[in-house]
Amino acid sequence: MSTAAVAITPFAALSFEEKLDRLALVAVRVGLNLQPGQEIVVSASLEHIPFVRRITEHAYKAGANLVTTLYSDDETTLARYKYAPDSSFDFAAQWMSDGIAQAFRSNAARLGIAGANPSLLKDQDPSKVSRANIAASKASKPAMELVTRHAINWSILAGATPAWAKLVFPDLPEAEAVSKLWEAIFKASRIDGDDPVQDWKNHGANIHKRVKLLNDKRYHTLHFKGPGTDLKVGLADDHLWAGGGGVGGNGIFSNANIPTEECFTTPHKDRVNGTVSASKPLSHQGTLIENIQCTFENGRIVEANASAGQDALRKLIAVDEGAARLGEVALVPHSSPIAQSGLLFWNTLFDENAASHIALGQAYATCLIDGEHMDDAKLASKGANSSLIHVDWMIGGGTMDVDGLDADGKAEPLMRQGEWV
Amino acid sequence: MSTAAVAITPFAALSFEEKLDRLALVAVRVGLNLQPGQEIVVSASLEHIPFVRRITEHAYKAGANLVTTLYSDDETTLARYKYAPDSSFDFAAQWMSDGIAQAFRSNAARLGIAGANPSLLKDQDPSKVSRANIAASKASKPAMELVTRHAINWSILAGATPAWAKLVFPDLPEAEAVSKLWEAIFKASRIDGDDPVQDWKNHGANIHKRVKLLNDKRYHTLHFKGPGTDLKVGLADDHLWAGGGGVGGNGIFSNANIPTEECFTTPHKDRVNGTVSASKPLSHQGTLIENIQCTFENGRIVEANASAGQDALRKLIAVDEGAARLGEVALVPHSSPIAQSGLLFWNTLFDENAASHIALGQAYATCLIDGEHMDDAKLASKGANSSLIHVDWMIGGGTMDVDGLDADGKAEPLMRQGEWV
Repeated sequence: MSTAAVAITPFAALSFEEKLDRLALVAVRVGLNLQPGQEIVVSASLEHIPFVRRITEHAYKAGANLVTTLYSDDETTLARYKYAPDSSFDFAAQWMSDGIAQAFRSNAARLGIAGANPSLLKDQDPSKVSRANIAASKASKPAMELVTRHAINWSILAGATPAWAKLVFPDLPEAEAVSKLWEAIFKASRIDGDDPVQDWKNHGANIHKRVKLLNDKRYHTLHFKGPGTDLKVGLADDHLWAGGGGVGGNGIFSNANIPTEECFTTPHKDRVNGTVSASKPLSHQGTLIENIQCTFENGRIVEANASAGQDALRKLIAVDEGAARLGEVALVPHSSPIAQSGLLFWNTLFDENAASHIALGQAYATCLIDGEHMDDAKLASKGANSSLIHVDWMIGGGTMDVDGLDADGKAEPLMRQGEWV
Repeated sequence: MSTAAVAITPFAALSFEEKLDRLALVAVRVGLNLQPGQEIVVSASLEHIPFVRRITEHAYKAGANLVTTLYSDDETTLARYKYAPDSSFDFAAQWMSDGIAQAFRSNAARLGIAGANPSLLKDQDPSKVSRANIAASKASKPAMELVTRHAINWSILAGATPAWAKLVFPDLPEAEAVSKLWEAIFKASRIDGDDPVQDWKNHGANIHKRVKLLNDKRYHTLHFKGPGTDLKVGLADDHLWAGGGGVGGNGIFSNANIPTEECFTTPHKDRVNGTVSASKPLSHQGTLIENIQCTFENGRIVEANASAGQDALRKLIAVDEGAARLGEVALVPHSSPIAQSGLLFWNTLFDENAASHIALGQAYATCLIDGEHMDDAKLASKGANSSLIHVDWMIGGGTMDVDGLDADGKAEPLMRQGEWV
C-alpha cells in the first residue's frame, strides 16, 4: 500500500485546454529539455497563439530567461505573392537569420511549431515560390547549420490549423476536423498516457536499442525493394545511426522531433542507385507533390516524375548540386502508431514517422562518427551531402523489404513487409 | 468643368474596414514614404493583426521587398513576470536587437504600431519592470541610435486595443470604447479629409514654416511659466528645430510620428533650471505616472515627485546619468486638434501632440546643425544629452506662457495661454 497516492486524471477525461497544456509541457520538458537560464526562439503561425502561450508559460516555469516567438502569417505571405515586386522573390530577411544564428551561438534553444497550411501556395507561380525558398534557405544557412550539426537543443512539434485539418479530414466540418487533428497529434505525440515524460523516456530507450544494433552491424548499403522501388542506398563512411533524441553540442539532450519513430543515418552522396517510388505524397513549402518516382545513378537523381507538383519537384532538385542527392535515410516500422492510425497527415513531421524514408539535400553531421567536429570538406570526403534544402519523402510501408548489405554485397534481411526482422 | 472627375467617398461614409485601410495607406505612403525595393520591420501587438495585414498589403503595393512583423503579446509578457526566474529581468534578446540594427544598416524602414495596454504592468514589481526595461534599452541601443540619428525612414502610429480604449473611455462598454478610440485615432492622424496624402503635405508645410521661424530666432533659452511651473530650458549650442517630418540619412523623407503637431529641438543638458509640473499623466512601459513635479538644477533633476507611480518615476530617472536630464523640448499650441478633442489618450504619441512637452534622456542628433555627423563626445560638447531612455512628458496646456530668451536673458513672448504669439 502506497502512502503517497497521486490522483491521475486519465487522458480521455482531460479537457482540450488541459491536453494542449500537456503537449506544451512535453514540448518544453521532453522536446527541448529546456535548462534554467536558457533563452528560446519559437517559430509559429498566428493560428498557434493559444498553444504558444501555453508553451511560453511552461518555458518560464522551467527557468527560461526569455521566450521570443517569431510569428508567420499565411495572409501576409499571400499578399506578398499578390502585390510584391518581382525583386521580392530573390530577397530574404538576412538580418533575422543572422540574429537567430547569434541566438543559437549564445545557447538559445529552438522550438518550431509546424502545422501551417500545407497547400497555401498551390495557386502561386512555382518559379516565384522556388526563388523565395532559395533566398530564404541561403539566408538561413548559418542558423540552420547550427541546427543540422545539433549545436543546440531544438525540437519541432505540431499544432492543428483549420487549413491543415481540412486536408487530413476533407469530409468533416472544419471545427470537427480541427478537433480530430488535435487528437491525432496528441496520440502521435505520445502524450496520452498517465505520465508522458516517463513514456517518452521509455520510448527513447527502445529506439536507442535499435540504433545500437544498427550501429553494431556497420552495413555498407541498404537495399529497398517494394512496388515501384528497387533502390540501393550506400551509407556514408563512418556513418552513425541516430534516433530517439540525442545530446547536442551544448551538452543538452533533446528530442528534435515530436513525434519520432525513426532510426536515421547519413547515406553516401555518390552511392545511391536504382529507382524509388514515394509511398505518400509530400507537402513542400505550400505545394503538394504526389506520386513521386525517381531514378538515381551514382547518387544523383537522373529522372524525376510526379503526378502532381512535378514542376515544384524539379525546381526543388535543381536548387543546387546537393538537392538531387540524398542527405538522410531512415527506417520506420509499419507498426509505428502513426502508420497504424491510417491517417495521411500531409505533414512530414508525422508522415516520415509512419514509413521508412529518404531525404534530399543536407546531411546531418551528427550522423557521422565525430562529424560535428568536421569541416565541410571533411564531411564531403566521408560521403555526407551538402545542400540548401533538406526534404524528407516517404518510401516505406507495409510492402517494403529492406536488406542490409556488407561491403562485398552480402545481404541480410533487415525489414520484411515493413517490419523489423 | 473637369473631364477627369474622381468619385470621392466622404470619410464619414466609409466603413470601419475602409477607414483602417486608409490609415494603413497613410502609414506606408506618408509615415514611411516607403521606396520601391525597401524592406520594412514592423513592431506590433497581436491585437493589431488586422491592421498589420492592411499595412503589409499597402507596403507590397508600394514596392516593398519584404515586410517582417515582430509581434509582442501582453499575455506572454505577464507570464514572464509571473513565472520567469529572477535572472530573466536582467536579460534581453540581444540577437534580435542586433538583427534589427543590421536591417536598418541595410536600409530597412521601421514602422512601429503603438497601442499596447498602457497599464499592463501596473501590478508587477517595479524593480523587475525597471530592470527589464534597462536590459531591453541596453540591448537595443545600436538599433535605436540609428533611429534617433534618423539614419533611415521610420514612423510610429497607433492602433486601438481594448485595454487602451478602456482607459481612455472608462465609462463605455468595451466594443464602443474601441470604436470611439479608433475614430479619435483616425481624426488625430488626419486621415478624415478627402485626400489625406495631400492633407499631410499641407500640414507638414505649415509646421515647417513655424520651424523656420524658430530656427531664425536662435533663442538661447526657453522660459516656461504656468501653474506649478517656472522652468528655464537652455537650448543646445547649434540646436536645430525640427518638426513636420524630415529627410533621413538614407535620403528618404518620412514622418516619424503620426500624428505630429510639434516643433522640437535639443535642450542643453546642463542648462535647465527651475520647477515644472506635468500637465498630463504619463504611461511609461505599462506603469501610469500621475502629477509629476520635478525641480532641475544645472540640467539635472534634484527632486522628483508624483502622486502615483512615484517609484517608477524615480527608478526611471536613475537608469543612468542622462536619465535625469532633458533630451528634447517641444512646443505644441493648445489649438492642436488633439488638445481640442479634450481626450486624455494615456499615450505619448497623442498626448505629446496636445501640449508642449519635454523629454528625459537621449537627445536627437538631428536637432543639432550637422549633428548626424558628430560622435558622442562632440554631441555632448554641444550640450546634447545621452541616455538609454527617451521619455516625453507633457507640461503645456491652455495656461502656459513661453518666452524666448537671448544669451543676455532678454525675453520675447513666444506663446501666451498656450497659443503662438
